[in-house]
Amino acid sequence: MKIDLNCDMGESFGLHVQGNDEEMMKYITSANIACGFHSGDPHVMRETVALAKKYGVAIGAHPGLPDLVGFGRRRMDCTASEMKDFITYQMGALREFARANDVGIQHCKPHGAMYMQAMEDREVARAILEAIEEIDKNTIIFAVNNSVMLDEAVKMGIPVAKEGYADREHTADGSLVLTRKSGNLDDFDRMAERVVRMVKEQKVVTYDDQDASIEVETICIHGDNPDAPKLAKSVVSALNQAGVEVVPVKQLI
Amino acid sequence: MKIDLNCDMGESFGLHVQGNDEEMMKYITSANIACGFHSGDPHVMRETVALAKKYGVAIGAHPGLPDLVGFGRRRMDCTASEMKDFITYQMGALREFARANDVGIQHCKPHGAMYMQAMEDREVARAILEAIEEIDKNTIIFAVNNSVMLDEAVKMGIPVAKEGYADREHTADGSLVLTRKSGNLDDFDRMAERVVRMVKEQKVVTYDDQDASIEVETICIHGDNPDAPKLAKSVVSALNQAGVEVVPVKQLI
Amino acid sequence: MKIDLNCDMGESFGLHVQGNDEEMMKYITSANIACGFHSGDPHVMRETVALAKKYGVAIGAHPGLPDLVGFGRRRMDCTASEMKDFITYQMGALREFARANDVGIQHCKPHGAMYMQAMEDREVARAILEAIEEIDKNTIIFAVNNSVMLDEAVKMGIPVAKEGYADREHTADGSLVLTRKSGNLDDFDRMAERVVRMVKEQKVVTYDDQDASIEVETICIHGDNPDAPKLAKSVVSALNQAGVEVVPVKQLI
Amino acid sequence: MKIDLNCDMGESFGLHVQGNDEEMMKYITSANIACGFHSGDPHVMRETVALAKKYGVAIGAHPGLPDLVGFGRRRMDCTASEMKDFITYQMGALREFARANDVGIQHCKPHGAMYMQAMEDREVARAILEAIEEIDKNTIIFAVNNSVMLDEAVKMGIPVAKEGYADREHTADGSLVLTRKSGNLDDFDRMAERVVRMVKEQKVVTYDDQDASIEVETICIHGDNPDAPKLAKSVVSALNQAGVEVVPVKQLI
Repeated sequence: MKIDLNCDMGESFGLHVQGNDEEMMKYITSANIACGFHSGDPHVMRETVALAKKYGVAIGAHPGLPDLVGFGRRRMDCTASEMKDFITYQMGALREFARANDVGIQHCKPHGAMYMQAMEDREVARAILEAIEEIDKNTIIFAVNNSVMLDEAVKMGIPVAKEGYADREHTADGSLVLTRKSGNLDDFDRMAERVVRMVKEQKVVTYDDQDASIEVETICIHGDNPDAPKLAKSVVSALNQAGVEVVPVKQLI
Repeated sequence: MKIDLNCDMGESFGLHVQGNDEEMMKYITSANIACGFHSGDPHVMRETVALAKKYGVAIGAHPGLPDLVGFGRRRMDCTASEMKDFITYQMGALREFARANDVGIQHCKPHGAMYMQAMEDREVARAILEAIEEIDKNTIIFAVNNSVMLDEAVKMGIPVAKEGYADREHTADGSLVLTRKSGNLDDFDRMAERVVRMVKEQKVVTYDDQDASIEVETICIHGDNPDAPKLAKSVVSALNQAGVEVVPVKQLI
Repeated sequence: MKIDLNCDMGESFGLHVQGNDEEMMKYITSANIACGFHSGDPHVMRETVALAKKYGVAIGAHPGLPDLVGFGRRRMDCTASEMKDFITYQMGALREFARANDVGIQHCKPHGAMYMQAMEDREVARAILEAIEEIDKNTIIFAVNNSVMLDEAVKMGIPVAKEGYADREHTADGSLVLTRKSGNLDDFDRMAERVVRMVKEQKVVTYDDQDASIEVETICIHGDNPDAPKLAKSVVSALNQAGVEVVPVKQLI
Repeated sequence: MKIDLNCDMGESFGLHVQGNDEEMMKYITSANIACGFHSGDPHVMRETVALAKKYGVAIGAHPGLPDLVGFGRRRMDCTASEMKDFITYQMGALREFARANDVGIQHCKPHGAMYMQAMEDREVARAILEAIEEIDKNTIIFAVNNSVMLDEAVKMGIPVAKEGYADREHTADGSLVLTRKSGNLDDFDRMAERVVRMVKEQKVVTYDDQDASIEVETICIHGDNPDAPKLAKSVVSALNQAGVEVVPVKQLI
C-alpha cells in the first residue's frame, strides 16, 4: 500500500518568506512549486527546484492566478484561453529551472482559486488540461474526487491523481471545504489518523460529520503553518506504522 | 552577401496594443518576442509565436527587466543572479509557447535597459550568458560592436550576432545612442542607405558625424513607430537592390 | 433640460497610449480618471487631471480592480473590506493630484468588472459607498437604473447619478449589456438620437428590441474607440439641437 | 534632551507578514508606513494607520520604488518627474487612510533605494521635495547628515529631521552604509549605548573605526529582525536612563 504526500513549496516572494520549505522536503514526496503568478519569483523557483532535487522529492508545477496581493485565492473570471495561456507560461518557466537542474516535472497542481475553479468549471478544467496535453501529456494532474477536472482528465487520457487533504475538511462527495481564511485543523494525531483511514479504508469523516467514501493517491499537507513540519512528521510516521509506504505519485499512477 | 533584420515583437499588453506586428513580420527575418516582464503577456506570446511561424520568421526571446510601467527602459541595480534568473524564467516561458507551435528559439536579445546594462557591465553580460548556456548554448545572443557582451560571449563559446540599428544613432565604437525618449530618425531612404552601407562597407556615420567602422550580422528596426513597416520595406528593398539577401541570423553565424 | 456626458480618461499606462483624451475633453463634462489599478499610472494621472482642468471638465475617480493585464475587466471575488480599501487607496491617490491642481473630485465611477459587481452585489455596493462616505459624502456615485448600488446610495444619503450609455446596449430594467469583447455600436447618428431620446423621453430601445423606461443624469461615451471623438461630437450636437444643455453632473444632482 | 525613534511599518503584503508591527509601536514615536509600491497594500495600510493611532505614534509616509519583488531595494534609473509622481501618488493614498482615522501625516521617509538615491542625487532629492511642497510643506522629510536631501530641504524651507541609525553603520560624513544584504548589528546593549552617544554627544564610531560627528533628531530602528522589539526596548530604556525623552519628531523640529 502506497501514498504520495504533496505540499505547496516555493511560495516565498522576494524578501517575504513563506513556510519552512527545507524542513517540509524531509517528509513529502511531491513538491508543488509556485511559478510567480500568485507567489514565488524566479530566484525562489531556482532555489526550490534545487531543494526538491537535494531531498529526492518529485517536482510539480503549482501555477496560480495572476494576483500577487491576493495570493491567488480570489476567483477571477478569466476566459478558457487565458487559463490555458497562464498554465503554458508558468509551466514553461518552471520547466526551464527544472532542466537547469536535470530534473523533470512529475505533476501539475493548480493553486488556490484556480484549483477550485478547475474542479467546478468544466471549461476551465479543459483549458488547463489542453495546456498540459500540449506541454507533456504524461504530466499528472491533481484533482479532488468527483470533480469535473477528474472527469475531463480521464476523458482526455491525461493521468490524474485523486487528492485528499490532511489539514482541510472534505464534503460528502470528496470535494474540499476551502475558505480564504481558515480550514486548518489543529490536532496532528487526529489528522494523521484521518490520513491513514483515507488511504487504508477509503473513508473520511466530512466537515458535517458524515462518513464518506474517498479515493486518494496523494495527500496534501499545507506548509504555511509554522507547525506544518510537525504535522508532516506525524502523518509520515502514522502511515509507516500502518504499513503504508510514502512514495512520489508517479509510482502510483 | 547576407544580413538579418530583427524587430521587437509581442510588446502589446492586455488591451494595450503596441505596433503592427503582422505587417512587420512580412519584412523581418528574426522576431524578438517580449516575455511578460517589460511587456507582453501569455496570450500575446502565444499569438506572436504563431504569427512568426506563419511568416517563416525565426523566433528569439526578448527578455526585459521586471518593470511594466517603465516598459523595461529604466536601469535597475539587480544582482547578477537576479539577472540570470530573469533570463531563465522568461526564456522558459517563451520556449514553452514555441514548443507548442513546433518551432525553436534561434536567439536572445535582452530588451531596453537590460540590453544596455548587458553591453556595459561585464557581470550582467556573464549572468545572461550563463543562463543561456544552461538553457541551450546554441542560442545566438545579440550584441553591439565592442561591447562586453560580445567579448564574454566569444570567451564562453556562445554564438553572438553583431547588431546595428536602422533607426538609432551609433557612436564611434559601434555602440548605441539610446535615450529613453527619442533617437528615431525619420528619413527612411537615408536610413535604408545607411543600412546598406553598414552591411556592404562596414561603415556608419555616427551621431557626431564621424565615419566609423562597424560589423553587422543583424540590423534592428523598431516596430513601435506607426511608420515602421514603411521603414522596413524601404530597408529590405534597398538591401535587395544592393544585392544583399535578407535571411535569419542563424544562416550567418 | 440638462445632461452630463462622462468618459473614462487617463487609461494610458506607461508607453501604452489609450484613446485620444485631449480630443474627448472638448466634448465631455465629466472625466472618470483611472487610478493605477486597472490602468493609468502616477504620471498619466497628473497629466489627465491637468487636462481636465484645462478644458473645464469635472473630475471623478475611476477606480478598478487590481488587474493590469486584464484591464480590470475580469470579475474578482474580493471581500467587501478589500473593495472598500481599493476605493480609499485609489481615490486618495487621485485626490492628491487633484489638490496639486487646485481642483476637487466631483464623482466616483468604478471601472469595468468592479462597476458590474457593484451594480449586482449589495455587499460590494455598500463597501464602495462606505469608502466614499468616509472620504467625502458629497462625492456623486454613478449607477445604472434599478441597480443595488442606486438603492444603497439612496439609503445612505450619498448623491447618485443615474447613468445611460451612448455606445452600449441596455436591458429592459435599464441595466447594461457588458461583455468583455464588443458591445460597441457603430452608427453615430443613431446613437446620438438614442441619447437624445433617453434624455428627453426617458426611453430606450433595448438590445432585445423592447421599448424600456430609463432615467439618466449622465451619459457614458467610451473613449477607446478611435472614432470616439466623432461620436462625442455627434452626441453633443444632437443634444444641443434638441435644446438639451450639456453640463457637469453636479449641476444636476 | 529629546529624540524621536522611527521604524518602517506596514511592510506586510497580502498574506506575507513582515515584522511585528504592534510590538514595535510600543517603543517608537514615528511610524514610516509603506504605501504599496515596495510593500504594503491597501488593507495593510488601513490597519497600520489604525495601529499607530492606537499607540499614539506619529504617522509618516514611507514611499518606495515600484518594485514589489525587489522590496524597493534596487536602485532604478527614474526621471525626476517619475520620482515626484511616485511620491504624490503614494502620499495621497496614505493620507486618505490617515484622514479616515482622523490623524495627520507628520513626516515622509522614502524607502530603501529611493532613500539612498535621494541622499546622493540632487535632482531626485528636489523632485521628492517638490512633491512634498505641493502636498503639505509642513511635512518633515528625513535625511542623513551631509546629504543633498538635507541641503535641498533647507534651501526650499521644508522642515527636515537629521537621521541616525541604531542598527546600521555610518560613514565619517554621517551617511549610511547600506547594502542589500546585511548591515544589521547584533549587540543590543552596544547599539543602545551608541544611540545614546549620538544623541547626547553628537558622536558615532563609524564602520571603519573613526570617531565622527553626527547630529540626530530621529533614530531609525529596523523592524524586520525578529528581535527588533528587544532592540527597541533596549534603546528606549538606555535613552531614558540617560535622561533623554523619546518624542515624535514634530516636537523637535
